[in-house]
Amino acid sequence: MPTRLAIVGGNPAGMSAASVAKRRDPDLEVVAFERGPYTSYAACGIPYLVGGKIAEVDDLIARSPDQHRENGIDVRTRTKVTAIDLSARTLSVEDEQTRETSSEPFDQLVIATGATPALPDIPGAQATEPAHTLDAAASLRGEVKRHGERAVVIGAGYIGLEMAENLVNRGLQVTMIDRSPQVMTTLDADMATHVQDAAEGHAITVLLNVDVHEIVRDDAGRPTCVRTSEGDLPADHVVIGTGAKPDVELAKAAGITIGETGAIAVDDTMRAPSHDGVFAAGDCVESHHRILGKPANIQLGTHANQQGRIAGINVAGGDAHFPGVLGTAISRICRYEVSRTGLSEREAADAGIETVAAKIQTSTRAPYYPGAGPVWVKLIAERGTKRLLGGQIVGTETAGKRIDTIAAALWNGMTADELQFVDLAYAPPVSPVRDPVLVAARALADQ
Amino acid sequence: MPTRLAIVGGNPAGMSAASVAKRRDPDLEVVAFERGPYTSYAACGIPYLVGGKIAEVDDLIARSPDQHRENGIDVRTRTKVTAIDLSARTLSVEDEQTRETSSEPFDQLVIATGATPALPDIPGAQATEPAHTLDAAASLRGEVKRHGERAVVIGAGYIGLEMAENLVNRGLQVTMIDRSPQVMTTLDADMATHVQDAAEGHAITVLLNVDVHEIVRDDAGRPTCVRTSEGDLPADHVVIGTGAKPDVELAKAAGITIGETGAIAVDDTMRAPSHDGVFAAGDCVESHHRILGKPANIQLGTHANQQGRIAGINVAGGDAHFPGVLGTAISRICRYEVSRTGLSEREAADAGIETVAAKIQTSTRAPYYPGAGPVWVKLIAERGTKRLLGGQIVGTETAGKRIDTIAAALWNGMTADELQFVDLAYAPPVSPVRDPVLVAARALADQ
Repeated sequence: MPTRLAIVGGNPAGMSAASVAKRRDPDLEVVAFERGPYTSYAACGIPYLVGGKIAEVDDLIARSPDQHRENGIDVRTRTKVTAIDLSARTLSVEDEQTRETSSEPFDQLVIATGATPALPDIPGAQATEPAHTLDAAASLRGEVKRHGERAVVIGAGYIGLEMAENLVNRGLQVTMIDRSPQVMTTLDADMATHVQDAAEGHAITVLLNVDVHEIVRDDAGRPTCVRTSEGDLPADHVVIGTGAKPDVELAKAAGITIGETGAIAVDDTMRAPSHDGVFAAGDCVESHHRILGKPANIQLGTHANQQGRIAGINVAGGDAHFPGVLGTAISRICRYEVSRTGLSEREAADAGIETVAAKIQTSTRAPYYPGAGPVWVKLIAERGTKRLLGGQIVGTETAGKRIDTIAAALWNGMTADELQFVDLAYAPPVSPVRDPVLVAARALADQ
Repeated sequence: MPTRLAIVGGNPAGMSAASVAKRRDPDLEVVAFERGPYTSYAACGIPYLVGGKIAEVDDLIARSPDQHRENGIDVRTRTKVTAIDLSARTLSVEDEQTRETSSEPFDQLVIATGATPALPDIPGAQATEPAHTLDAAASLRGEVKRHGERAVVIGAGYIGLEMAENLVNRGLQVTMIDRSPQVMTTLDADMATHVQDAAEGHAITVLLNVDVHEIVRDDAGRPTCVRTSEGDLPADHVVIGTGAKPDVELAKAAGITIGETGAIAVDDTMRAPSHDGVFAAGDCVESHHRILGKPANIQLGTHANQQGRIAGINVAGGDAHFPGVLGTAISRICRYEVSRTGLSEREAADAGIETVAAKIQTSTRAPYYPGAGPVWVKLIAERGTKRLLGGQIVGTETAGKRIDTIAAALWNGMTADELQFVDLAYAPPVSPVRDPVLVAARALADQ
């Protein structure tokens, strides 16, 4: 008798697991439950959908429910899993349209419940869609087209910044507010200041050290104003980008261990320890942070895909291991690409690690070559050993993906002294002869 | 009494050594001899100067003789070193304008004689400037402007390709010929075919497996025709890009050891063994190839700069070591960026290493994001262990510098299995969620 694999969550983590498991073991019966109407979509593309850079919702769907069905996966959309019973090995499931409920048996389970927006605890926030879902994005896109000229974005992280940029591109006057003293707290302040420059250069009004008290709405529920510690900001549209927290309610209620980070604890095979045949993957789990040497919950599509794949391999009898994360991330914010990996100075300090750091500015191409622009690279290392702990890059087009070289160095435990001599590629259209990453490594090595 | 450092060759290797040594030891007397009128220029920019993408010769000069003099370095341009006497510790020097000769003492010496074009042994080739020098490039640029509409480029390596592209950009009909069965023999044939597509798409006529017999010239020395095994090609301009060989004549005559590669043998401090205080750096030396585990002569500006710096540190009493090379290189060829690192399949076979390889095609950005283009990534590994030996990338803008991630992996001795999980950066404008390098690593790991 074929065994049955159930997937909770039709996002990239869940559907990677489903696809890989089914491909490796065609006899496996695979059923996936997803609350929304879409599967396997690229949430990272949402700001560009709102801004019109991406034309259609469908462009963001890597694989639709029907495409998964063609591959033999039984996808149930608009279907909510309300409980997991690990002893009976069943899911309680509710059809969100018909409200019919049923009990679905499973032999193996992949929990891919993702993350839910962490809304600020203020009146009016609950009703505001933060544009983390395709539905909400499509709706915002329509709203923006129909009325209003002022938008307020709450939260100056990368999603807030990308949304603000795209709303400016739609012709809106955009104010972005954050209670922190800097934008993008995943960067150190000395790097974030360049990102703020880019945002302000794109006509985004950036207000920092500001608390939000209320989103005021009219009778129809439409925002009219955002009340803040610095006064009232009129607003026809409000977007909240204040991060997300792992969605662990189902897992917790089922008795699965939640780690210190607040995310589901898994081993490197993506199994929930002490629950046979139960896997979890994606934004809802914690991962081994290779620099911190302990678990972290970092919500990135790259990790979700890899973890889903590993869960899928292991479900199908394979033996794959997830080697952990660095937290490598990149965004394009107005005129700059912005990227980071490993620990910031602040994160290292929070972990009790003494650091040295170097920040340099150079050029993305040979300075005489057309299109050359500025790039800042910051490297952080452990004091004494100069073992690399993290890197941050801000600069014009092509600057950002250089973070991958730093990520590979961190992955291998390299020191600044070692990194400065790695043989990297140079030609005038793509790099100065002294590569920006190597210049930063040398500056740190020479300290 | 301050000691005296003499530099033979005002190129990036020689002038890096001079600058670093002088900065670290201001009492050092530093004199540099250069045959041409320029110092520290970016030879890699020459094709773009010819093509007009770079406006002025001066744009390519990182630091002029006068700028070096301001830093306390005695630069003698248009001055030829005719002999090195290691027992007397003197250089025989000739002023190329006055023809005056002199004897210049030194305590320490850096030989940075670079490389000289390896011209094909055919009538008419000797008189053709191959555009390896700024003078020749400026002259060709003027010639192209004044007359003629047909150019023949001999040699389909990266310099030949870059020159051909830039001559097309100047409005010429360009034919490129090579005796090899493929363009760019630093790549494997299955990758080079994409480069040829790009060249042909740029209206360059590519003729392979063709021998050149003669460059026919008129009485004024101007080319009229190139005789080949496939017939005569009318030519108003001829550019030769058939590689270069290390210029070791002076060193050899002085009794300095020349290695098996034909380049000057140095240790990792850039010292010529058994000659106290004698250093060499740049295109004229051989370097430890980290994958082959033996010396190789690879002529790249990146190595020249690093080696010059290391020589300079050690001249000034420091203790720096050059850890070797991978041969990482990149070019922009028409619509593609082209890069490589480590060994190709052919190079590995020549070294007697059994290999496995994987080649994948994916997208430079999220496929739905505007500007996404194709990228091919090939990875080569040792059969059995799957330890990475080399990588090659061809693709549209932003594709090429991803080679640095592969270079960092090679540098650290990673296997394909390890590389596939490295935490790299993703956002729709800069990468697909499954990074091209990781997709290639996975394809190789899964073999």
